[in-house]
Amino acid sequence: MISFESDYITGAHPKVLQALIDSNLTVQSGYGADEYCASAREKIKLACNCPEADVQFLVGGTQTNATVITTMLKEYEGVISATTGHIHAHEAGAVEYSGHKILPLPHTLGKLKAEDVKALIEAFYNDEAHEHMVFPGMVYISHPTEYGTLYSLEELTALSEICRSYNIPLFMDGARLAYGLMSNQTDVTLQDIARLCDVFYIGGTKAGALCGEAVVFTKHNTPAHWMNLIKKRGALLAKGRLLGVQFDALFTDDLFFEIGAHAIKMAEKVKEICAAKGYSFYIDSPTNQQFVVLDKETLERLRKEIAFNIWEWVDDDHAVVRFATAWSTTEEDLQALEALL
Amino acid sequence: MISFESDYITGAHPKVLQALIDSNLTVQSGYGADEYCASAREKIKLACNCPEADVQFLVGGTQTNATVITTMLKEYEGVISATTGHIHAHEAGAVEYSGHKILPLPHTLGKLKAEDVKALIEAFYNDEAHEHMVFPGMVYISHPTEYGTLYSLEELTALSEICRSYNIPLFMDGARLAYGLMSNQTDVTLQDIARLCDVFYIGGTKAGALCGEAVVFTKHNTPAHWMNLIKKRGALLAKGRLLGVQFDALFTDDLFFEIGAHAIKMAEKVKEICAAKGYSFYIDSPTNQQFVVLDKETLERLRKEIAFNIWEWVDDDHAVVRFATAWSTTEEDLQALEALL
Amino acid sequence: MISFESDYITGAHPKVLQALIDSNLTVQSGYGADEYCASAREKIKLACNCPEADVQFLVGGTQTNATVITTMLKEYEGVISATTGHIHAHEAGAVEYSGHKILPLPHTLGKLKAEDVKALIEAFYNDEAHEHMVFPGMVYISHPTEYGTLYSLEELTALSEICRSYNIPLFMDGARLAYGLMSNQTDVTLQDIARLCDVFYIGGTKAGALCGEAVVFTKHNTPAHWMNLIKKRGALLAKGRLLGVQFDALFTDDLFFEIGAHAIKMAEKVKEICAAKGYSFYIDSPTNQQFVVLDKETLERLRKEIAFNIWEWVDDDHAVVRFATAWSTTEEDLQALEALL
Amino acid sequence: MISFESDYITGAHPKVLQALIDSNLTVQSGYGADEYCASAREKIKLACNCPEADVQFLVGGTQTNATVITTMLKEYEGVISATTGHIHAHEAGAVEYSGHKILPLPHTLGKLKAEDVKALIEAFYNDEAHEHMVFPGMVYISHPTEYGTLYSLEELTALSEICRSYNIPLFMDGARLAYGLMSNQTDVTLQDIARLCDVFYIGGTKAGALCGEAVVFTKHNTPAHWMNLIKKRGALLAKGRLLGVQFDALFTDDLFFEIGAHAIKMAEKVKEICAAKGYSFYIDSPTNQQFVVLDKETLERLRKEIAFNIWEWVDDDHAVVRFATAWSTTEEDLQALEALL
Repeated sequence: MISFESDYITGAHPKVLQALIDSNLTVQSGYGADEYCASAREKIKLACNCPEADVQFLVGGTQTNATVITTMLKEYEGVISATTGHIHAHEAGAVEYSGHKILPLPHTLGKLKAEDVKALIEAFYNDEAHEHMVFPGMVYISHPTEYGTLYSLEELTALSEICRSYNIPLFMDGARLAYGLMSNQTDVTLQDIARLCDVFYIGGTKAGALCGEAVVFTKHNTPAHWMNLIKKRGALLAKGRLLGVQFDALFTDDLFFEIGAHAIKMAEKVKEICAAKGYSFYIDSPTNQQFVVLDKETLERLRKEIAFNIWEWVDDDHAVVRFATAWSTTEEDLQALEALL
Repeated sequence: MISFESDYITGAHPKVLQALIDSNLTVQSGYGADEYCASAREKIKLACNCPEADVQFLVGGTQTNATVITTMLKEYEGVISATTGHIHAHEAGAVEYSGHKILPLPHTLGKLKAEDVKALIEAFYNDEAHEHMVFPGMVYISHPTEYGTLYSLEELTALSEICRSYNIPLFMDGARLAYGLMSNQTDVTLQDIARLCDVFYIGGTKAGALCGEAVVFTKHNTPAHWMNLIKKRGALLAKGRLLGVQFDALFTDDLFFEIGAHAIKMAEKVKEICAAKGYSFYIDSPTNQQFVVLDKETLERLRKEIAFNIWEWVDDDHAVVRFATAWSTTEEDLQALEALL
Repeated sequence: MISFESDYITGAHPKVLQALIDSNLTVQSGYGADEYCASAREKIKLACNCPEADVQFLVGGTQTNATVITTMLKEYEGVISATTGHIHAHEAGAVEYSGHKILPLPHTLGKLKAEDVKALIEAFYNDEAHEHMVFPGMVYISHPTEYGTLYSLEELTALSEICRSYNIPLFMDGARLAYGLMSNQTDVTLQDIARLCDVFYIGGTKAGALCGEAVVFTKHNTPAHWMNLIKKRGALLAKGRLLGVQFDALFTDDLFFEIGAHAIKMAEKVKEICAAKGYSFYIDSPTNQQFVVLDKETLERLRKEIAFNIWEWVDDDHAVVRFATAWSTTEEDLQALEALL
Repeated sequence: MISFESDYITGAHPKVLQALIDSNLTVQSGYGADEYCASAREKIKLACNCPEADVQFLVGGTQTNATVITTMLKEYEGVISATTGHIHAHEAGAVEYSGHKILPLPHTLGKLKAEDVKALIEAFYNDEAHEHMVFPGMVYISHPTEYGTLYSLEELTALSEICRSYNIPLFMDGARLAYGLMSNQTDVTLQDIARLCDVFYIGGTKAGALCGEAVVFTKHNTPAHWMNLIKKRGALLAKGRLLGVQFDALFTDDLFFEIGAHAIKMAEKVKEICAAKGYSFYIDSPTNQQFVVLDKETLERLRKEIAFNIWEWVDDDHAVVRFATAWSTTEEDLQALEALL
């Protein structure tokens, strides 16, 4: 079936798969002490232009968000997030599971504003009773956001400055970072992110890997006894090589960026097709997720031939649907979509 | 380098890898709702002769132990384990992380005795102050144990009977189950385990998969909203197919058992080699881990050529070392070991 | 110093203190198995006209909120609260500490609207991805609210109906219930609350006791092994009599209601004094907390003579201050306030 | 009824009660910012000869143990305790509730040996896989122990030295410290404890208060944002004065020591009476709990007239019973016991 359901509908990019095949019989120590993890770490640090970074591998996105947040926060701290933030809305309470509160803020197309973050922090410290409240201890943003939108360099810089002025780490969820970096409408580079964030992750699962996220602690600031902390959370892989091999492949010959660029190209074509057919967009998304308004009849007709997600119903007769592209999206997929719309 | 370091030193068994290659481009829904998971579930239920079972896939062993235990226990309950149990000794407090206590009992070569379990439970209920104590709510055993030993059918049956008489689930950690089932010295089958345990898992990571454990809830007794509970613990894979494809391969044409049998055959040869050379054994292990006493000089000499683990130092001059075999152990590995000993 | 700082600035009401004196030398078993707890339970059930209720005693408000919520919720559930709810804003993340999320909703003068609760629950179940989200599992309200406002019987009934239609318990935080029940502007009785809520608590600390809150599970619905659950949370008192004696006194000869009525009478006089002097009110509060807008100069002048809380700054020159009355507020206190304003 | 059931069977010592009466109408700020807490802090620091100490008040013993342990441990650490330790055996898993493991060690009459602690720590650091294990992060002892026994100054010094050599805090649970300090068989003073422990608590509940424990952080080492941390655990009292007033009374004119001395004197007489009647002792206890072996017939006869606890059954016909004395134990109580034995 043709599917625009998500960016994790197929297996690994062929080059990632080939790396798994090539490395399969080599003997390696477990728990991340393998040569592939070591190599991938160096390549990522280079790509980030951040020699002082630590790079740590984890399996999936929610695991990564919850682990990074709850190992970096002090016990009396919580994390600021947009109400639309994945950690707040769609991770089953994984942050709270570890005893930490999320401090929600309103969003603009999925994004936090620096001035709102500043206002929250100042209101907190101005409150005489703030020892009875959860301390703001981190800012969580996603880039692209859950709406596919992107922070501009100016916006990201402003957030970073606020965070640094209060000595609060800025954490970027980069589950779909490949598509953010390769968007036609971004001025933010991987190096900018490494410079402006205290920690962020480079999503592998949604960018051509079978699984895996690479956490970049940009200031050699991995929490002490990280291996123990992730073991305690059930996040330590015995065959850590599975993550190392894949990220080593993704960061060889710019594969990661190539994957991002392909999906962006496909998404731009989706946008063109939909616009040409007269459909309207819920959001003008610059990344690999396109949010299109369909009437119910069209929606039902398409559903028989193509897989996609219903984002939300606008009214009884119209819904926003999401078309997501990936490394495996083909021109044939686009033609089929065009024919059906 | 030749390595007897563990059973997770190489990638996937070639047939598992082939299944990943073959399935790579098929389009599948995420989060375990793919065809491979469905197929693997059916094959495992058949192998267990347990049509009423639920089969759930998770990524790694500690994650599986902590998830199964903490989703099945009531809040006032803890889990009984041998002091040597992996959850008690080597999982960084992952069970306690979720707010539950482990109730430790002495072991015999890594095994719990039914009579000790019974005595603990009876002492608990006889104590006038037991509402101030943690209720025994589950029994955790590993098979093979951390010492490579195995429960006999009689011993397992006795544990199961105690558990059922107190309505407490029996949970078997089967991280190395392949080697337990294919041991020359066992009378316990997979079907026996499915019949006698309330929940157990079939280890994939240590039996030829890149990652993955298959949890079998033998009485259709998966905790309600399992997907939410594992998401909350960061244990839900987006590309759930990664687990489905591998277990589908492991349970096609008895591959899982074949892998176990090969490692057992290699381990028996390790045993023969060591015995012929006059080395003594710390434990008479019937499975794929062999515990051999080496003098310091021999140990240091071997270490330059072969990788293995030091289990513990007996005295200043002697250590117990562990030689572990796996699907990838070869006759050449054995010859090299023999030549060096 | 004259103080309108809060309703917990003095010790116990003289009759409560006398009960502690009278009972001091009697020999009683510990942990709530004393005669005073038993007697207080019966008196509270009678006052609630709820013979099927369980009454449980705890020490303080945050402890009570967190204990009730986290012992009643299932693991995949969270609690709906107004953003101004005490549990969300001012309890240091005590609910999240136990691994549960708060699902915040906008408020109207501190109150939740039934239609907003309904909309949240419906949106949740209509979302295709709701297994990735925290299930709405309880509704938390405070009465009086943090703004001193009260639910009408109609509003409370509507909330109760929504909760029952979704089989979700309604929990009322009654830290200041005495003042809600004795307000001149309420049509809600203690019996109404017992009928409409699934669990609520009657605040003792802020109504003349030294400490203590009485939780009323209105449907004999105390979570199983309550003693163990509260012990686990450090909330079980050895000398449980301390709570029993005080609540027995509060529910003898309507003392609890008398205390509430006195504070309301004093608050109404505060209101009159402020109004007569031309000050404006931030909120028209019907209970024992009055929120008055003061200019900075007046505020600073008063502060030298009278203790009170600054609620929030409206602008650089004006702040909302809170004057709280209690059982111990006297006519002399009022005269002093009047003279100073 | 005459009762030797525990040391919390009556209310407050008359002088403590009088202090509550005397202070009742004074106006005080909440949450521990009152004059009585301040005064009690100073008196306790003086009694400990420890000017650099922080003194913090909490409500009960389990709350105090869990709060001190889980706010001082780092996330990857657990606490070493005797298997008989109250936190391990009788606190419903309160330490584990906050995500920390207890590392149990064998005991000698309820006591830990310094050499066993040393051995555990050394074995941990010698283990190549210790990053997979819970780090030893604190040593918990009780003094008197759960068996009423006491550490000698030499034993306590040895434990302290081990802890300091590994930079691990030593925490003493002093729920019954009054009786340990006033025992006829101790060479350990309050000043010794303040010098040798990093944190300990002085039990009020079991020594004449209605409730309350005074935690002494002996090196100005209260965890940062303590008020927030205890609020998060539901342990912050609004009327903190309740604790301050009582401890201020206990540490005025040596009342705390007087209470201890009285109970010890009564316990010694219990010992004499039992010995004279030919009963044997389970343990030679130097404190206020006496453990006497009774035959079943005697036990049943006594039970009709006197309250006491059955500690454990030795065989079908004999049990160890506990007679506990307190500030309120009288000569008449002793005479009644003597007459009945």
